[in-house]
Parts: sequence; C-alpha cells; structure tokens
Amino acid sequence: MRVVVDAMGSDRAPEPELAGALRAVRARADLEVILVGDRVSLGAPEHPAIRVVHASQVVTMTDHPAAVFRAKPDSSLRVAMQLLACGDADALVSAGNSGAVLAAAVFVLGRAPGVDRPAIVAALPAPDGRRVVLADAGANVDPRPAMLAQFGMLGAAYARACYGVARPRVGLLSNGAEPGKGTELTRAAHTLLGQATGAFEYVGYIEGHELFTVDVVTTDGFTGNVVVKTLEGVLADYASIGGALLAGVTRPVIIAHGRSDALALANAIAMASTAAPLAL
Amino acid sequence: MRVVVDAMGSDRAPEPELAGALRAVRARADLEVILVGDRVSLGAPEHPAIRVVHASQVVTMTDHPAAVFRAKPDSSLRVAMQLLACGDADALVSAGNSGAVLAAAVFVLGRAPGVDRPAIVAALPAPDGRRVVLADAGANVDPRPAMLAQFGMLGAAYARACYGVARPRVGLLSNGAEPGKGTELTRAAHTLLGQATGAFEYVGYIEGHELFTVDVVTTDGFTGNVVVKTLEGVLADYASIGGALLAGVTRPVIIAHGRSDALALANAIAMASTAAPLAL
Repeated sequence: MRVVVDAMGSDRAPEPELAGALRAVRARADLEVILVGDRVSLGAPEHPAIRVVHASQVVTMTDHPAAVFRAKPDSSLRVAMQLLACGDADALVSAGNSGAVLAAAVFVLGRAPGVDRPAIVAALPAPDGRRVVLADAGANVDPRPAMLAQFGMLGAAYARACYGVARPRVGLLSNGAEPGKGTELTRAAHTLLGQATGAFEYVGYIEGHELFTVDVVTTDGFTGNVVVKTLEGVLADYASIGGALLAGVTRPVIIAHGRSDALALANAIAMASTAAPLAL
Repeated sequence: MRVVVDAMGSDRAPEPELAGALRAVRARADLEVILVGDRVSLGAPEHPAIRVVHASQVVTMTDHPAAVFRAKPDSSLRVAMQLLACGDADALVSAGNSGAVLAAAVFVLGRAPGVDRPAIVAALPAPDGRRVVLADAGANVDPRPAMLAQFGMLGAAYARACYGVARPRVGLLSNGAEPGKGTELTRAAHTLLGQATGAFEYVGYIEGHELFTVDVVTTDGFTGNVVVKTLEGVLADYASIGGALLAGVTRPVIIAHGRSDALALANAIAMASTAAPLAL
C-alpha cells in the first residue's frame, strides 16, 4: 500500500507531514509513504518505507484553486496527484488548499461516471459508535440542485463501501421539516432525491439536532463545512479524525485540515491506506 | 411585567404553555402572563397572575407564514401580537411557526428604523461562561448581503444591551478565512461590514470551530438555524435555553422551539420579561 503525501500542504508544512508519515509507517508494516515537496526542506527520509520526490513549487491558501494548476506546474500538489494518476501511489493525502486539491483531482484524475462535481465526504463519529457520512463537507459552496442530490448518493456509496450499510438512510439538511422550509436549492434537491432510485432510502429533510439519526447527511459545501467545524470545536474526539475523502474522482484522495498536526496527518494517511482498495 | 404567550404554538400545545406559564409566575412575583388561545382547551387559570384571552383559530406549521396572517385573523398568534402592539403586554412568546411569528411581528409591530428584515438572535452559552450572540438563527434563509451585514449590527446591539459588551467583536461565519472562501453572499457582506461604522468591531470571517472566539456571529438564517440545532443536538445544556429574540421589530418578541417543554417555555417567558425593558 503506497500513499503519496503533498508534504507542503499544511499550515506548518512540512513538519507535520514528516512526523505524520513516520508515525504512519511505524504503525503499519505494509505501508509506504511518498513525500512530495522541496527536497531541502524535507531532508533525508527517516525510515526505509518513506521516499521523497522533489517538487519546486508550493500552492498557498491564497492561490486561486483552478488557476494555480497551470500557474504552478511543479507544485507539490500537482506532482503528487500525477504520481497517484500514473499508479505510482494508491491514494493521496493533502492538507493544503482544498479547492486546489479538488481542481487538481478533477484535472488529473477525472470525475467518476455520472458525477458532476466531486464532494468532500466526512465521517462523523456518532454517540452510538457509528459513523455518519456527511457530503459535501466543503468542496462546493454553491452547488446546483442535481449536485446536492448527487452528494447524497456519493455519501450512500461511501456508507455502503466503508461501513457496510446495505441501504443507507439519506437525509437532506435543512432548517425545518415542513414543506415550506429550506431554500430554493434544498427544495429542488428534495424533489430530485424523492424521485431517485438506488441502494439507499431518502428520508427527507433533517435538522441540525438530527444529524445522528441517519446514515448519510446531504448538504452544500458551505453549510457542511460549517457543521463539521462546529462539531470539531465542541467535541474533543473530533480533532483526530484526520481527513475526509474527496468522493467522485477516479482515485482515492484524502483532504486533511490545514491546521493538521502529526497525529491528524498520520490518521489521514491511515485513512488513505484504508480507502485505497474501495471503488466509490 | 406582563408577557403574552401564544398558547397554541408548540407541537404539544397548550400543555407546555400552561405548565410553563405556571412555572414562570411562581418563580417571579412581579410577572403576569396572558395566555392566548382556545378558552375551552386552556381552561380556568391556575394562578392569579395568569389570565386567559380567547382566540378561535390556530396557526399550524404547514400554514404559509405571510398568508396565514389574513387567512386566520383570529389566530392565537395574531391576537397575542395585537395585545403586545397596543401595550397590554410588554413582551411576547410563541413556540409556533417561526415564519408566521416573523410575518405577524412585521405586520403588526413594524420594523425598527434602518432594519430591512428582522433576525432571530440566539444566545449561545460559551465554554467560558459568556454568551455568544448568533444572528440570524432562522428568520431569513436567503438574505441579501445588506441584510446579512445588518444581522451583525443587530447582534451587536443585543450584545451591548443584554451582556454589557461595550464594543462587541463581530465575525462573519464562513467555510474558511482566506479571501477566496465563502459564497457570493458572504463576500459581499464582508465588504459591507468592513466599511460599516458603529459601536462594534468587525473581525472578518470566522469558521465553525471559532464560534466562541467572538461576541457576535453573523450568518444567514439557514446556516444559523443548522448551527444552533447542531449544538443543541450535541451539548446537553442547550436544551433549556428557551427562546431566541426576534430582533429588529419595535417590541420584544421571543421565538421558542416548536418542541419546547414546560421548562423551555418557562425559560422563554423569563427571557421575555428580561428583554422587555431593552431597546434594540
């Protein structure tokens, strides 16, 4: 199992990436990590299962997500994505600019069949020990109704593949359950999800206090990001989740927080090695 | 201090309203409660400080918020709002259809000067014991940028009046702090708040895990409602908050949850009696 890591992504890169990779390879014997970034900053690998690939440029949080792909052709993100695309790695982790990760994934890997826009999938630890899948956790802040409906289906595919839920219950996040509630976006997506068929059950609108009553929560990337970060802010056990899967591209990409520490990056790498064999 | 209660509002009305009113008047000697609703369902008052005013119609959760105002002229909500408007009460509480409460408040009471749309203001208990003011918590799901900016100013007025914060720090809720983050709506509101002057300090974008770093959180009513209910779902002490102030109308209106129990309604009535003397 080979995981490629954009080693220049996190807010304090490359220290958390270096320490996280070391932690990850020590925890799992069959794991190899490829760190992509400036070879001087990265230094010599501290473990035989870690390899360094040089890239001379860095994507920053202020770079335009799509434009930076061409503007910085030798960025650690783009080089890492190309290693994933050509089969030199089985999964990718980046704690960098999430919009740029999304754009690079779409440009290099391509979208999965039937997917208009990939979504970030977060697995929320529920009080009963289950994981509740939330999509989109931040990739698309202004989706169209068809995209919002697809996020539910991507989330359901994830719940089936990762948690063995045969027929996931999918809820659409809203500000109330009554017909007049929601926005134009949620009302149109509600209609689409009600007509959709597949290996999931659409249960309709759910509210913020009902997140853990379903298997999959569908929402736009703005609301989803705010909800996930709100939970992280108040629940101690959320800090170590590590990363979220970018679902809807052809190969596994894990997006970690910019403020990730070594533990969070080690967890994200472990998550990538688990996600790698899954077809979503 | 006289608080008028729409006694037919909550999901299990009028039992929680009756029990909540009794609890509230027993806890505070100078409080009078006027219960508005069907006189047969309400029965004879159980306490000398409780009075019943009859109204023959009930607003339901499926009624159109604005249309129901004319369609049901003798609704408990409208009769209660008129008692507030004409000075028979100092503040109002309803656990009914929040859109209908907003519409009735605007029609009967009118908007405060300079306010385009009233907002629901929630006071979130912070880990350090402070209250963080969030606006809008659900009244306007698709606001324009100027409204979103005003919600911050309404929240700041509330933080000054209720919590004595001389110069509240106002943050705009977003999915990231970088310039490219947010939606068209938040980016336009960010510009407006950056130019605004007044007795508050605009600190820019904040994320979900940073809610408790500011005094006031500004957001649209869809996101705000989801955030408040998400916190209620995971934090035990949130259930008893009771109600949220509808800020931006000329008299104090408290909106309680539809699923309020007697304790929550008693707390909402207590909150109304506190809010009554404030000019927001």
